[in-house]
Amino acid sequence: MMSNLRIIPLGGLGEVGKNMMAVEYGEDILVIDAGLMFPESDMYGVDFIIPDYSYLRDKKDRVRAIFVTHGHEDHIGALPFFLREFPVPVYATRLTCGLIEVKLRQAHMLRETELHTCAPGDVLSIGPFRIEPFHVCHSIPDTVGLGVTTPAGLIIHSSDFKFDHTPVDGRPTDFAKLAEFAGRGVLVLMADSTNATEPGTTPSEQVVTQALDDVMRKAPGRVIIATFASLISRIQQVIDVAACYGRRVAIAGATMAENVKMAMRLGYLRIPERMMVSLGEMESLPPSRCLILATGAQGEPTAVLSRLALGQHPSISVQPGDTVVLSSHTIPGNEEMIHRVINRLFQKGADVVYHPLAPVHVSGHASQEEQKLLLNILRPRNFVPIHGELRHLKQHAKIAAELGIPRERVAVVENGYVLYFEDDCIRVGERVPGGYVFVDGSWVGDAVGPAVIRDRESLAMAGVCVVVFRYSPQRGALLGTPRLTVRGVAARDAAEEVIAGATEVVRRTVQDIRPRTPSATVERQIQAALSEFFYQQTKNRPEVIAIAVEE
Amino acid sequence: MMSNLRIIPLGGLGEVGKNMMAVEYGEDILVIDAGLMFPESDMYGVDFIIPDYSYLRDKKDRVRAIFVTHGHEDHIGALPFFLREFPVPVYATRLTCGLIEVKLRQAHMLRETELHTCAPGDVLSIGPFRIEPFHVCHSIPDTVGLGVTTPAGLIIHSSDFKFDHTPVDGRPTDFAKLAEFAGRGVLVLMADSTNATEPGTTPSEQVVTQALDDVMRKAPGRVIIATFASLISRIQQVIDVAACYGRRVAIAGATMAENVKMAMRLGYLRIPERMMVSLGEMESLPPSRCLILATGAQGEPTAVLSRLALGQHPSISVQPGDTVVLSSHTIPGNEEMIHRVINRLFQKGADVVYHPLAPVHVSGHASQEEQKLLLNILRPRNFVPIHGELRHLKQHAKIAAELGIPRERVAVVENGYVLYFEDDCIRVGERVPGGYVFVDGSWVGDAVGPAVIRDRESLAMAGVCVVVFRYSPQRGALLGTPRLTVRGVAARDAAEEVIAGATEVVRRTVQDIRPRTPSATVERQIQAALSEFFYQQTKNRPEVIAIAVEE
Repeated sequence: MMSNLRIIPLGGLGEVGKNMMAVEYGEDILVIDAGLMFPESDMYGVDFIIPDYSYLRDKKDRVRAIFVTHGHEDHIGALPFFLREFPVPVYATRLTCGLIEVKLRQAHMLRETELHTCAPGDVLSIGPFRIEPFHVCHSIPDTVGLGVTTPAGLIIHSSDFKFDHTPVDGRPTDFAKLAEFAGRGVLVLMADSTNATEPGTTPSEQVVTQALDDVMRKAPGRVIIATFASLISRIQQVIDVAACYGRRVAIAGATMAENVKMAMRLGYLRIPERMMVSLGEMESLPPSRCLILATGAQGEPTAVLSRLALGQHPSISVQPGDTVVLSSHTIPGNEEMIHRVINRLFQKGADVVYHPLAPVHVSGHASQEEQKLLLNILRPRNFVPIHGELRHLKQHAKIAAELGIPRERVAVVENGYVLYFEDDCIRVGERVPGGYVFVDGSWVGDAVGPAVIRDRESLAMAGVCVVVFRYSPQRGALLGTPRLTVRGVAARDAAEEVIAGATEVVRRTVQDIRPRTPSATVERQIQAALSEFFYQQTKNRPEVIAIAVEE
Repeated sequence: MMSNLRIIPLGGLGEVGKNMMAVEYGEDILVIDAGLMFPESDMYGVDFIIPDYSYLRDKKDRVRAIFVTHGHEDHIGALPFFLREFPVPVYATRLTCGLIEVKLRQAHMLRETELHTCAPGDVLSIGPFRIEPFHVCHSIPDTVGLGVTTPAGLIIHSSDFKFDHTPVDGRPTDFAKLAEFAGRGVLVLMADSTNATEPGTTPSEQVVTQALDDVMRKAPGRVIIATFASLISRIQQVIDVAACYGRRVAIAGATMAENVKMAMRLGYLRIPERMMVSLGEMESLPPSRCLILATGAQGEPTAVLSRLALGQHPSISVQPGDTVVLSSHTIPGNEEMIHRVINRLFQKGADVVYHPLAPVHVSGHASQEEQKLLLNILRPRNFVPIHGELRHLKQHAKIAAELGIPRERVAVVENGYVLYFEDDCIRVGERVPGGYVFVDGSWVGDAVGPAVIRDRESLAMAGVCVVVFRYSPQRGALLGTPRLTVRGVAARDAAEEVIAGATEVVRRTVQDIRPRTPSATVERQIQAALSEFFYQQTKNRPEVIAIAVEE
């Protein structure tokens, strides 16, 4: 018989369930995570993408709380947007709360937000949901998976995880708790699929410590290490190794500095007295005693590393003898930018260490063998691969099938599909509407949609040609010379040549126009004629904007 | 003492020496390869990039010939452009000539081109150059490296190569010839650095045959294999395996069909009688007897695979039961497009096999151990890593250093640097001018330069706002209401809101203008005011084009 439980991944067209999930029981809704997604390179001008939670809009009063599993941008980044519409209590572990506070303070929303700190082992009762966060290893400390007990059964959400037997913070994933859950019987497991195409086991963070040790031992001069501002455990590794080699540490990058301060305050970063110095103080130290922690390992043009590569940083300049380490994974789509930065750093005479040259980064996500282990520990009745593109989910589903979980109990769905449970068996229901929600400058959602992006694309491909002409509707005649202006079409000489021809086209088009033809009609005709003319002349189709000034 | 030998890699800002190299002795110049480069994602609207050979323009009469080492686009793609300016004899092996013919025919340049077919083992005397092409393994048959004997000494150019002991065509790289060169003494080796960051040895093409066999054995229905149109040896592998499983083969994609016809004619493809069928004929066959060879493994939006993924192909539609194989490497920057295609194919219910899920593709380039082998066989006096970004060349140079080649005899240079030889020792000289040469539609070079790309970028990021207003210079006054038009700025409602405000800004700006202020000045002021207004309102800066219509 059909239960009152419904689970819905709500990430728009992004990775499934990565940025947000909704768990519904009867009239109550629990939201898990509110992260942002980075735009693909053809989403012109989009700053980032937030989950599409329009499904929840007419259910505001039913949303009880949001639980955030860890402090990475793709899990907390959309909170300011979400909380503006849904001012519900936020639950997270200490470090995660710390990172959320930093974010909410920037958004001037800290005061009005009800933020609850909890810890693995706690049991939270929210409406019909009994929530038990449990510790998992990931590339940021204090990450938790969730056990959510509902009248319909026990749901396990793995969050982003890996099984690291030698993690930086010394706390492996909580096997005992997983076993206990298994003992109670798991209705459905939702597990991280990010590395479902990676065979074997993800290496331990320990590997990175060794690689960093290797770099700092050999580096003749300064070492500059670029990583994510939120990669707290990586920062700890760098600090520990730097201490061994008597290197002082300076931080370049505002967000990283802020996160470090916060993490130290909360005790998630242990940094020896007198080890931290300012970039200014560092200048008086011998290079072999210097280590700089920087942001921008993704090649972001405005971040520290890119500015170093371009020689545009106010206080640091890369020199021969420097060693630069990129210690973070490459977000798909950033390959070109990152490689450009690496090449420029080599140009400046630095030595650059990056994956795969050395294991200066390992993934924070479980590979195939770990995914099998989780499935075999929990032996769930139903399985939903989440946190991945369709290709990853399909692969994760294959793995579950290999372990003997019946196909009909594995649901591979995209965001927006409602998952029901009938006699403890999962059933894929209707799809709730949803898509991309773009954030562009101060615009959110509908203001910048697919149509706008399409316009920007055609502007990007061939530029724009504006033609302004005096027009008398009575006589259906052009008055004076039409004025053409182009942007992004071609360089001056080439442009002037086409413009000359285009002006003629405008004249000819207007010649055979009847009296009393409305301006709008003439504008359309000129638009069409010019667009065709440009294609014939240049095999390009710039956007044409024709504007008649009536006389 | 300084010799008369000069070597110059001429690829603009691309991979060093990949698309073109010039070897000069005294008054004579030999050009090697004329390939094209694919644009990076922020080179808006650029179709492709050709080498910058402006250095050769004032030396037309000194260019004796061009030798093309193999038939890939990045080595032959720029020939039509180059030959238009430098109608010199072209030398290449048979298959390469075949592919060049296809290309020149499309460009209507076949008749006037002097095309010479040569084979490994031949010795060509061209001016002071004694050229000995030698067979190397690569992902296309008939690839040759070059031994070029000059009065100054012997130059070895590896071309793109790998050491494959079990290649598809049964012809391993010519070790004997390499040994012979070594015996004569090698002045300088220029070798492929593409995989300099890859440890170990590149797997043999044999691995792909096994992977394809595995796929076709298990595939319940049709198999669709996407690869490069020029990957002749891969096509042979597919055909051979398909034959084992009684699958008929149809080709989707014009260029691939043309290449296959040509390669069969020249005997580089052996296809059993009656095996090839048309897509139409295939419909009458059981799916398990069907194999379709298609283009578009890079996710190119207009190629067959993308159209299949979007369900936009005229004669084929992907269905559950189909197995799609992506059998080619990912050109950096195409990751997003390819993953999107893979996800869409999964959406349509197909099974998709791609690297790293299965070794359905192996690189055609030597990895570190093979690079060491080549260096140790030849023991060159000097070494120039080529065919790679700076990061690859640096790595290749480190490898040479590990093998004991003195640092001062290894030249890591970017394109345009002139390499001299003084007492048999390499010396890096001046850099000749050069950069990107963009091809965009029918425009080549200066017509579309960095400035145009910058304009396109800002159009892409925030769109364009055109403001047309009647203006009387005498009175320094605005007449009537200014008319604002936007494209790619925001969706209608949001746009109309900003436009209302912007119109006010135009009015206010013109208010305090003095009589007899020229239109151009007013246009500039309005441009500045609006740009600022937009930023304040939207945190975006659309391009503003202000046009005054004088009264």
